[in-house]
Amino acid sequence: MFGARCARLVLRRCSSSVPSAKSIVAPRLLPIREALEVQDPTGHDVKIQGWVRSVRSQKGVLFLHVSDGSSLEYLQVVGDPRLESRTLTFGSSVEVRGKLVKSPHKGQEVELAAEDIRVVGPCDVLAFPLKYKVHHSLDYLRELPHVRCRSNVLGALLRVRSEATAAIHSYFKENGYTHIHTPIITANDCEGAGEVFKLKPANEEQTPGEENHFFNIPAFLTVSGQLHLEVMSGAFTKVFTFGPTFRADNSRTRRHLAEFYMVEAELFFVDTLQDIMQVIEDIFKTVTDRVVSNCPQDAALFHKRIAPGHEAKLEKMLKNPFITMSYTEAIEILERSRQEFTYKPAWGQDLQSEHEKYLVRHCGDIPVFVYDYPYDLKPFYMRDNEDGPRRTVAAVDLLVPEVGELFGGSLREDRVDFLQSRLRRLMLEDTYQWYVELRQFGSTPHGGFGMGFERYLQCILGVQNIKDVIPFPRFPHSCVL
Amino acid sequence: MFGARCARLVLRRCSSSVPSAKSIVAPRLLPIREALEVQDPTGHDVKIQGWVRSVRSQKGVLFLHVSDGSSLEYLQVVGDPRLESRTLTFGSSVEVRGKLVKSPHKGQEVELAAEDIRVVGPCDVLAFPLKYKVHHSLDYLRELPHVRCRSNVLGALLRVRSEATAAIHSYFKENGYTHIHTPIITANDCEGAGEVFKLKPANEEQTPGEENHFFNIPAFLTVSGQLHLEVMSGAFTKVFTFGPTFRADNSRTRRHLAEFYMVEAELFFVDTLQDIMQVIEDIFKTVTDRVVSNCPQDAALFHKRIAPGHEAKLEKMLKNPFITMSYTEAIEILERSRQEFTYKPAWGQDLQSEHEKYLVRHCGDIPVFVYDYPYDLKPFYMRDNEDGPRRTVAAVDLLVPEVGELFGGSLREDRVDFLQSRLRRLMLEDTYQWYVELRQFGSTPHGGFGMGFERYLQCILGVQNIKDVIPFPRFPHSCVL
Repeated sequence: MFGARCARLVLRRCSSSVPSAKSIVAPRLLPIREALEVQDPTGHDVKIQGWVRSVRSQKGVLFLHVSDGSSLEYLQVVGDPRLESRTLTFGSSVEVRGKLVKSPHKGQEVELAAEDIRVVGPCDVLAFPLKYKVHHSLDYLRELPHVRCRSNVLGALLRVRSEATAAIHSYFKENGYTHIHTPIITANDCEGAGEVFKLKPANEEQTPGEENHFFNIPAFLTVSGQLHLEVMSGAFTKVFTFGPTFRADNSRTRRHLAEFYMVEAELFFVDTLQDIMQVIEDIFKTVTDRVVSNCPQDAALFHKRIAPGHEAKLEKMLKNPFITMSYTEAIEILERSRQEFTYKPAWGQDLQSEHEKYLVRHCGDIPVFVYDYPYDLKPFYMRDNEDGPRRTVAAVDLLVPEVGELFGGSLREDRVDFLQSRLRRLMLEDTYQWYVELRQFGSTPHGGFGMGFERYLQCILGVQNIKDVIPFPRFPHSCVL
Repeated sequence: MFGARCARLVLRRCSSSVPSAKSIVAPRLLPIREALEVQDPTGHDVKIQGWVRSVRSQKGVLFLHVSDGSSLEYLQVVGDPRLESRTLTFGSSVEVRGKLVKSPHKGQEVELAAEDIRVVGPCDVLAFPLKYKVHHSLDYLRELPHVRCRSNVLGALLRVRSEATAAIHSYFKENGYTHIHTPIITANDCEGAGEVFKLKPANEEQTPGEENHFFNIPAFLTVSGQLHLEVMSGAFTKVFTFGPTFRADNSRTRRHLAEFYMVEAELFFVDTLQDIMQVIEDIFKTVTDRVVSNCPQDAALFHKRIAPGHEAKLEKMLKNPFITMSYTEAIEILERSRQEFTYKPAWGQDLQSEHEKYLVRHCGDIPVFVYDYPYDLKPFYMRDNEDGPRRTVAAVDLLVPEVGELFGGSLREDRVDFLQSRLRRLMLEDTYQWYVELRQFGSTPHGGFGMGFERYLQCILGVQNIKDVIPFPRFPHSCVL
């Protein structure tokens, strides 16, 4: 079948061992991050591409700062003022050819001695909402979802977010977890909170009173991949997922989004909450170490400009062993405190954000695990501790400075009879028949946890508003772009 | 703040440098994948955890095969028949302690000489839908979404899927791309196909005639992250996303799902489709090489049992430079062919699945890029080639054996006037004002592409039905679990 005609169609070869004419003459395209890392610039011809951050002429020399998004730092370009042109302005995109040389100027090791500067795309400076040398506020930038990624602060944020995403995937891979894409569309409502989004095809005509679902049954956007992950941990021992989850929650706070990302993991052959806590602490510290050492300038921008003093706070979180206390102890501490709470702390009541923050401050701003929560507060799948009148389940939350709850986890109820009787009382026995069955075919004690990824970014960078740590925030009354 | 009380609460330390009493006496827990890789078993005490694949006694020796999901291969356990118990059956979960020794038996290098076998969770063998030594068909397994991951074939599939996910993230990171989470909920419908899911809070009462949206405007599930990625490529030069996308498409084929995963990338400073094709070919080959070398046994299971002969096909795809032909050439080939097509090929018509498959066969089962598609067939954002009466856009699809279209990409229309006049004709000027603006603030020629992740898995493994390559498939009339 593969005849002469097809051979003729092979217009292009991918082999990199045969250099094309182009690759011999063309200067090497260098990302700016790499250009800045060159230790001993040899004056070789290079080409850079990026956006102009500043243009100025001084003493017969043209100075240009160019960034391409690969790092917070720009590359300084120097050249003959005759290389300047009317369209070479702040915001324009350029391609610069020249030689990378040791910089005689202050503030950088290398600079690019330009031989040619080509404006690829001009920038309408008057209309461009970002202005030269202005530190725009996060509030202002939030109004510009299609442009704000070009500001220093959102650029830094998104590089950190990308690095953290990679670090999380690496952490789990290196520790033997299998990655699972848990479903986004689901017939289950794991948390039982009811604040879910329902979906149907846009072109489906809904006749009142008649249920005519695309999937035959009502379908929702997932609030957690946990139950589906449990299916998988019963086959792979250790599994994780990292994907979007949704809440149709009408509260407009700086801590909530309608669409946010969760990192969730499940582990089979786990008997104690201690095992879960150990994994949580290890992930937090390992991933954060990696992010901060791979993006030092981006992290520093936040720790200096956005949240002064946060670097020391983060160091404290990383250096100290996390603290653990039972829910009962936590309530005692809150009851003894002299702080006026909006919600009076009492055993059997949920911890409110104000309580969580108090507890973390009480522990000297070191992250604190609170474990063994009241049975009646928690969902059906958490393991009953069978501990008397003040009955608890083996659940744990990790509270961190400012953000409050960052991780939530539990041992899962692995005993068929306990699970069945709880489901029976909730009238959910039929719905979760499959979930009960998982316990009948070689189950083991197991547990898992979830971490809100945006809250994690808030925690390590010190960002107050959750809308500033996600590329395109979705919340009540807002779904821009 | 960090007083004596808190110090008392430090119940647990994470420091691994101070071995606990437990870690001194307890045998080391070894994943089975690692146990099988031990070159020179020294008879050290180890512990394994997993599920029993077979139990038999022979000549006074108990033989057990145990797997834990870390690899397709099981570990052979040998022991005294007195270690056997009533609950030690196929499917039960066990913890085995013993010594790892060189195996005197055929078929494995190492085996575990058991000192203790503990059944952690028994298996109700009669009720368990998977049976000992039975190769269940994919059709049968598809009916068991909560159990099928425990079969060899789905276990292998999900390990390959996990490995491919990691390889894709690594590829982009190593090549300087920034990862972006593009939104799942969006007000835009990138493809303009109309087959989208619309969403609303489950507890929102919809008064007929009254629009009372959670987001103030109608909101949909994304069909592509492309437009949002374009925003980001204008700040980071090279960006990618890897997430779920949705189609409310009622067609029930072996190639379509309502929820599937896409890998999408956008590149700024790109002038030609060749650049896009080069990246696509490089990704396909690099990622596949990595997956096949990291999961050789899992891939081999598919290439032997599910799709005999597929290994040679895949090798051909990896060894040969991909072929390129224009859409016009492709139509000529189809018109000249003697095959009876259901849809008659004609310039200006979309390529159907039957046409795509013919073209790949025609090219000797080597993947083929088809580029420059009719202007009127393609969405508004593709770059006009301005090439006369048979007007085309700079679009490219990669067709692969059996699957057909695997990648789709294009140069994006970067010229403001071209874009505006096309949007005006489509009455979309207001909706995409922000998209036009991107071209006014230092834009450059740019392009990108998307790959269907499930089709990719079908392509490298030879799996016929797309429902078998995703953990929890969603399609018309089905949303199980």
